[in-house]
Amino acid sequence: MTRQPNEIRSDIAYSRPDRIVIRGKDLAQDILGQMNLGDFAYFQLTGKTATPAQSRVFNAVLITLVEHGMTPSAIAARLTYAGAPESLQAAVAAGLCGLGTVFVGTTEGSARMLYEAFEQAGDNPDLDRLAANTVADYRARKQIIPGIGHPIHKPIDPRTPRLFKIAEDNGMSGKHIALMQRIGAEAERASGKVLPINATGALGAICCEFGFPWKIVRGFGVMARAIGLVGHIMEESERPMALDIWHDVEARATAHIRD
Amino acid sequence: MTRQPNEIRSDIAYSRPDRIVIRGKDLAQDILGQMNLGDFAYFQLTGKTATPAQSRVFNAVLITLVEHGMTPSAIAARLTYAGAPESLQAAVAAGLCGLGTVFVGTTEGSARMLYEAFEQAGDNPDLDRLAANTVADYRARKQIIPGIGHPIHKPIDPRTPRLFKIAEDNGMSGKHIALMQRIGAEAERASGKVLPINATGALGAICCEFGFPWKIVRGFGVMARAIGLVGHIMEESERPMALDIWHDVEARATAHIRD
Amino acid sequence: MTRQPNEIRSDIAYSRPDRIVIRGKDLAQDILGQMNLGDFAYFQLTGKTATPAQSRVFNAVLITLVEHGMTPSAIAARLTYAGAPESLQAAVAAGLCGLGTVFVGTTEGSARMLYEAFEQAGDNPDLDRLAANTVADYRARKQIIPGIGHPIHKPIDPRTPRLFKIAEDNGMSGKHIALMQRIGAEAERASGKVLPINATGALGAICCEFGFPWKIVRGFGVMARAIGLVGHIMEESERPMALDIWHDVEARATAHIRD
Amino acid sequence: MTRQPNEIRSDIAYSRPDRIVIRGKDLAQDILGQMNLGDFAYFQLTGKTATPAQSRVFNAVLITLVEHGMTPSAIAARLTYAGAPESLQAAVAAGLCGLGTVFVGTTEGSARMLYEAFEQAGDNPDLDRLAANTVADYRARKQIIPGIGHPIHKPIDPRTPRLFKIAEDNGMSGKHIALMQRIGAEAERASGKVLPINATGALGAICCEFGFPWKIVRGFGVMARAIGLVGHIMEESERPMALDIWHDVEARATAHIRD
Repeated sequence: MTRQPNEIRSDIAYSRPDRIVIRGKDLAQDILGQMNLGDFAYFQLTGKTATPAQSRVFNAVLITLVEHGMTPSAIAARLTYAGAPESLQAAVAAGLCGLGTVFVGTTEGSARMLYEAFEQAGDNPDLDRLAANTVADYRARKQIIPGIGHPIHKPIDPRTPRLFKIAEDNGMSGKHIALMQRIGAEAERASGKVLPINATGALGAICCEFGFPWKIVRGFGVMARAIGLVGHIMEESERPMALDIWHDVEARATAHIRD
Repeated sequence: MTRQPNEIRSDIAYSRPDRIVIRGKDLAQDILGQMNLGDFAYFQLTGKTATPAQSRVFNAVLITLVEHGMTPSAIAARLTYAGAPESLQAAVAAGLCGLGTVFVGTTEGSARMLYEAFEQAGDNPDLDRLAANTVADYRARKQIIPGIGHPIHKPIDPRTPRLFKIAEDNGMSGKHIALMQRIGAEAERASGKVLPINATGALGAICCEFGFPWKIVRGFGVMARAIGLVGHIMEESERPMALDIWHDVEARATAHIRD
Repeated sequence: MTRQPNEIRSDIAYSRPDRIVIRGKDLAQDILGQMNLGDFAYFQLTGKTATPAQSRVFNAVLITLVEHGMTPSAIAARLTYAGAPESLQAAVAAGLCGLGTVFVGTTEGSARMLYEAFEQAGDNPDLDRLAANTVADYRARKQIIPGIGHPIHKPIDPRTPRLFKIAEDNGMSGKHIALMQRIGAEAERASGKVLPINATGALGAICCEFGFPWKIVRGFGVMARAIGLVGHIMEESERPMALDIWHDVEARATAHIRD
Repeated sequence: MTRQPNEIRSDIAYSRPDRIVIRGKDLAQDILGQMNLGDFAYFQLTGKTATPAQSRVFNAVLITLVEHGMTPSAIAARLTYAGAPESLQAAVAAGLCGLGTVFVGTTEGSARMLYEAFEQAGDNPDLDRLAANTVADYRARKQIIPGIGHPIHKPIDPRTPRLFKIAEDNGMSGKHIALMQRIGAEAERASGKVLPINATGALGAICCEFGFPWKIVRGFGVMARAIGLVGHIMEESERPMALDIWHDVEARATAHIRD
């Protein structure tokens, strides 16, 4: 049987003996020594060089997502490293596998909500009414509004005003951030509870200002957290806690049958 | 049974309602808007603020590792995404799992070789003799010298002179880079083959100049490649190739039994 | 700060110096040599010893999911193994990461559909009407009916009649299988297309006959495919194809920019 | 540029519209309902139908590796599931990533040791001398002898005599098991410590009796543990402990900086 394969095509990078070309730029000559990592991530994803303003905002977005302490993801990476220290990459991979709908992946929810609100609203929508409708819809469906509320960081999540200020200082505070802020205020009003816009809500709104598709927004958390996990593995290699966590969990979880 | 758990301790980060503190700095007030992602990675790993010189070199190290085209790792991530597009994090994780002894993980090999050469050599070693001994040892054991040789990038790997120049311009070209260069020259002489110092050799040597433990050096490739893989998944979501790769491989691999 | 941890508890297994006890049975004395792997999987999950009839059906369910040729999952595992042959476990993990909503994970969809249909239907529902309503609902929402249709295996998926026969021969062909069959027939009638019940539809229905929660049904595919992936890695270690796939994909995907 | 791809080839499986063929057998007609899962794993890996004796021994090998309580691997899978419950497959993958040189992967070490001892020994070696030499070599290199010693299961690991008995009862107790037993006895004699042959030592020896290459032996632990991990995730979905583990570890690990 003869089968003619379809064309497949990638425009990200290619190599020749004397150069590696990424998004049309020569890595050695035009990139190394001239970009920082956040700007290069922007370039890798969009094929465009970040303006100084975009650079400041995008680096802040990614940095916010790198590290949040001894999370389930960090503990999973440490436990994995204890069993396979020769495969550091697999320990990071294990830690990333849990960045789903409960943690980190939530950023995409607020980006999607904002995009969809504007899509349905037509031109020049009234933001207050759009926020009211959005909050009412979620409440009617008994769904949690993405990007709103935090178990620890209240009455405000300290990252949110700082991220919104950085966006504003760099000319990137547009209608998506404005709508997110109104949704936060309306959610508090409607529920009577303290519901700060959390970091994922702020980040989701900023990603909309950049125009990133909501489907890729989770990826910013994934790439950033990979950095954080390497930090945890480095600490684990120097001052291990995985075996102690293991023994403690095992003893507690089986106390009722062993004794 | 009562069991008193041991102390476990992490010095990376903690949260209070009004702040997130990473390595002693307040994330919102002292970090966001004031660091780029590469500098924050350095800070996350070492607890120290990178000097401008360290910033330039460390960002270059990480950027070198982000993207190298349509690698096995990138293809694995794309194939995984095709099966579970709702789990972008798992697709990145799948791509990272292959960064082992054959690809990317090799960076740690050259760092380890350089550290061990200096450890065994005592104070003020003669670099030429150290290089000659190192090459002779590997050749006697019939082992490949890490960081030397490249299937495509020859007679020189274009990243290597650029990385060494950036290190030199920033006052970070010390004895480890010097030894690596001598090992490269000696390997060519002893084998009679064209054996450029490749990017992993250059990066391993620079990581030694920073003083990073060789066990964590692979982690730089892992965190950097996570960024690159998100770029591939973004392109895959817009112009997919995974299903075509699948159908083509399946048809080719089973042609002898199906027909 | 003193924090009193909550009770955590697992009833699966515990160890003492002289024995390992799983679900209340002594591994060495009561299990090894007396169960096959499929029966032990059933015991591990449910805490119950499979009857001979359950054993035959459950082993058939798992075996159906082990291997389906050169799938994206198998190719991803092989590519990962090529980069990290020292981490066979990470290659299997990479292959499993893609068993999501598009492949394999679909089994849970048909189980969920059947459970929900009966939940909403009350006692002694008319199966024909239930099937008609279910199909109509999916068509109204323009959603694909899970477990129906196959790109290759038509007009029938050869696994489906065999699995249903095994269930029937072992007294396990109940209302869920009956409803699945009616849904298949109704879907063909309503669409005018050839829409066989595929293997995931048959397996989902059988899992309902066992009473497994739909949330765990995907797990059967995951555990089974882990076996299949080890088989692919074993073949890859003896007759490798990963590097050839890589070089071929890279050449095709970048032909338009390299040349 | 035209590039003629090399032949790639797999002999495991292929599909036609009316059948799926695995290792030459028709899945629906010749396998389903006629094999148990362990036998099918044997068939998938070797292309051969297990004899009744091989079936009993191989099923016992795999079952031994499925479950060992609240291991680091099981805890990592549970923590991952808590963050991404929609991606059960990624939680299993995370749990598998840690089956490396410290846990489970150790099985391959004893298989390798036994194969290499016989390779170097020539025909009809004296087993006592071979054991003495092997133990002396490991002690001279200050390496741990694989498959010997256990932190909990002493003076004997209860799985070992049972596994060796099952092998013997089924005519599969050959020279590799005999050498392993002598190595265990010699290790105790030479060290003056209680050093039982542990389960990984017993399993490694039995895998040699089957003739499996040592490089694939770790895969048996990986496929078996995938079953065990699905069991842990099922329990986690019904009686969760992941969030409690997280909060407890976080509180303990950061007590010194938060308070």
